[in-house]
Amino acid sequence: MATPVLPPTAIGIKAIQFYYPKNFVAQVDLEKFDGIAPGKYTAGLGQIEMGFCYDNEDVTSLALTVTHSLLEVYKIDPKSIGYLCVGTETLTDKSKSVKTSLMDLFGDNTDIEGVDVKNACFGGTQALFNAVDWVTANWQFQERLAIAVMADIAIYEPGNARCTGGAGAIAVLVGPDAPLVIERGFRSCHMANSWDFYKPIGGEASEYPKVNGSLSVKSYLEAVDKCYNLYNQKVIKQINEGRDTNAFTAILFHCPFYKIVQKAFGRLIYADHRRGGDSWLTNTDEFEPFREYSDEKTYTDRDFNTAALQVSKPYFVQKVEPNMTLNQRIGNMYTPSVYAQLVTFLAKFDPIAATPQRLLIFSYGSGLASAMFSIEISDAENSELAKMKEVASGAVHRLEDRIQHSPEAYAEVMANREKLTNSDVPVIPSSSQNGISSHLFPGTYYLTNIDVNRVRSYARIPLH
Amino acid sequence: MATPVLPPTAIGIKAIQFYYPKNFVAQVDLEKFDGIAPGKYTAGLGQIEMGFCYDNEDVTSLALTVTHSLLEVYKIDPKSIGYLCVGTETLTDKSKSVKTSLMDLFGDNTDIEGVDVKNACFGGTQALFNAVDWVTANWQFQERLAIAVMADIAIYEPGNARCTGGAGAIAVLVGPDAPLVIERGFRSCHMANSWDFYKPIGGEASEYPKVNGSLSVKSYLEAVDKCYNLYNQKVIKQINEGRDTNAFTAILFHCPFYKIVQKAFGRLIYADHRRGGDSWLTNTDEFEPFREYSDEKTYTDRDFNTAALQVSKPYFVQKVEPNMTLNQRIGNMYTPSVYAQLVTFLAKFDPIAATPQRLLIFSYGSGLASAMFSIEISDAENSELAKMKEVASGAVHRLEDRIQHSPEAYAEVMANREKLTNSDVPVIPSSSQNGISSHLFPGTYYLTNIDVNRVRSYARIPLH
Repeated sequence: MATPVLPPTAIGIKAIQFYYPKNFVAQVDLEKFDGIAPGKYTAGLGQIEMGFCYDNEDVTSLALTVTHSLLEVYKIDPKSIGYLCVGTETLTDKSKSVKTSLMDLFGDNTDIEGVDVKNACFGGTQALFNAVDWVTANWQFQERLAIAVMADIAIYEPGNARCTGGAGAIAVLVGPDAPLVIERGFRSCHMANSWDFYKPIGGEASEYPKVNGSLSVKSYLEAVDKCYNLYNQKVIKQINEGRDTNAFTAILFHCPFYKIVQKAFGRLIYADHRRGGDSWLTNTDEFEPFREYSDEKTYTDRDFNTAALQVSKPYFVQKVEPNMTLNQRIGNMYTPSVYAQLVTFLAKFDPIAATPQRLLIFSYGSGLASAMFSIEISDAENSELAKMKEVASGAVHRLEDRIQHSPEAYAEVMANREKLTNSDVPVIPSSSQNGISSHLFPGTYYLTNIDVNRVRSYARIPLH
Repeated sequence: MATPVLPPTAIGIKAIQFYYPKNFVAQVDLEKFDGIAPGKYTAGLGQIEMGFCYDNEDVTSLALTVTHSLLEVYKIDPKSIGYLCVGTETLTDKSKSVKTSLMDLFGDNTDIEGVDVKNACFGGTQALFNAVDWVTANWQFQERLAIAVMADIAIYEPGNARCTGGAGAIAVLVGPDAPLVIERGFRSCHMANSWDFYKPIGGEASEYPKVNGSLSVKSYLEAVDKCYNLYNQKVIKQINEGRDTNAFTAILFHCPFYKIVQKAFGRLIYADHRRGGDSWLTNTDEFEPFREYSDEKTYTDRDFNTAALQVSKPYFVQKVEPNMTLNQRIGNMYTPSVYAQLVTFLAKFDPIAATPQRLLIFSYGSGLASAMFSIEISDAENSELAKMKEVASGAVHRLEDRIQHSPEAYAEVMANREKLTNSDVPVIPSSSQNGISSHLFPGTYYLTNIDVNRVRSYARIPLH
């Protein structure tokens, strides 16, 4: 009989890898191209650049790229993995999992539980929670690790939502004795039936979503309130005292665009103020005029919003904004979005700083599914943490290795994606027909063709 | 601070509910209608009848029906639920979860983690595993229960695969101190990249899959072998001895059709024989001529197959066949398929029989994802078990309350589903325009309309 294995402790993230496309368009250029008022996408939404993929990248190629790279860079033995789950909303198939394609990376080890998880931008967080629970529940029998993959291509039909696109993929290794510990018992969720953003099947095939923008913003902010309140209830139940925003080194949010994160952070500060946990806040008298406002009214009222931004600004600049570089320069990535802030945080992480440091994370997916949870860094000098910092820094620096394209070129790429989606088969993506390597980073997987039975095949750009 | 809660034990299934459509067609009638040799669908595949839905049922209506019914029949407090996960491959949306629609059934309790899980027929098993792991990992903090929902409508384009359709939905309540305990540490998986069955997005929208039938049969049988071997390795590691098929009261298989289950069971007997764990087997000399056969050859060789069926038959009749009633009379249900055998087992369960009784379960989803695990019944006189038996018996008896239709009527219903999938919007399903209640059981949810934004709305047939 096997020697008993102790229950696992300090389960969390032990490795992280981030992939984003080599191509981007500047938001100032998009403003001109779309013929709208200058500053609408930049000052208005707070976005700087937007990454995009040619028609030979899809969710499977993204997931292959980031997972292969995670295994390679961290020298992870494929045999050490017992669970793998992919969170995505960029589906190319209604039945076959992206996860099944990733099995090609694991050789003889076919005993890897987990399939795909789907709910808009929330799927990645559910994949992470599943991975944490799988390790918690199965470590004593398996002593194996888990991987959560988040991958999406965010694109919109021509019009005012198109500037909120982006693309990316993140893979995290989950196991015990992790430097980034997911705190147990503190997860809070807010789940509801909402049609704020969805991708119905029916009629002509399309990669674009249906969007109710104002409902989506309101649903997001309401979810922040509900999750934060419930998070605190759970914390109080366990450690007898709550936590205000000041209890966290950094606060990371799902980021469809910068400005909504600013508003969301304002909600946390407003909640602290109303709970009376605001002795450390300055300027809270700005909230006075809105004392009688209903929650409902605060979601849309401009004056309230201005006041909330004003009160929260000094803390926003300190705890939120520094981690938004990748989000502002790549755009919305759907499932990887909030984890791109974790990557940015790690790139800037100072191991000399006192620990424990604590991060609060808010994840949101339209439809809707949302959650809040926290991560504790208990050992700043951990070698796994040092490796993650190195990889994260590399990801931030790689922003400069991208190719800038004109809005005209971007529009043409989008037109090619539309054509491919509705093409007869067999078909070779236009960008796989020539010049494949110029718009892909080394080590990137790409779609070589879709055969007569709509089977998709992939190849990899050499690493060197 | 909260009083510490002990780690949960005996986690498993505490309640089960099964829904299937009120309409069916006889396989003998389909044989005539399709103009093929008599017996091909009946004797050949082993199927008797096939259930089907009109165009006003979709995966969301199925999931609403079965989940509402689970809560209602077992008087489950919606506040007691902390996790809910839906496994399906009958997607109507690439982003919004079916789970979000189910939130309408839980009132103020919006703190219910979990979204949809997708990989062909395997999604339901992953939903169950997720639910078990969630309870295992979170019980001490939450003391709440989990629900796993499996729902699918299996339909095929006109031709020789159409007779392998079906439809159904199962919901299970998961928690500690369950009468049906999912044995910890014994789960084995076989996951691989296979294009045996899939539902690509692109071109014209369709509910029908792409199928490579012979690859799918071979992939399924290979998965049985791999999972059974690995299951035994894990059992031996923990309890120092393996288990042969004789160690189980019943063995339940994913069932696209009866005959493949017969073959799959033959693989287990063949594996027992080869491991030398066959002292209880008679007639094993039938395997002699195939001693030098490669595994590869045994998957397709007719003589081997005949011999395996011969040797395994007495045990098949005892341990497998009695639980296939619902599968033979409703057809393939995709994710709920193997759990329909659990329902049949429960309907026939004899509480006087000695416990522990043990069930072996094999789940398969094309693409591919598969797993084997076991359930132990340790207390036959448990009141939750008695309630499950009552509900299961009701489900089996309800087969007689269905309406038999002609193949012509079935073909017309399928044509209406095709029309709806490709219709301009807004649209009302043809079967919601009149005579709604005649082809739906009391308590069934149905699709009332798809609006101009492709938002789907539902209503419920009164219970009485």
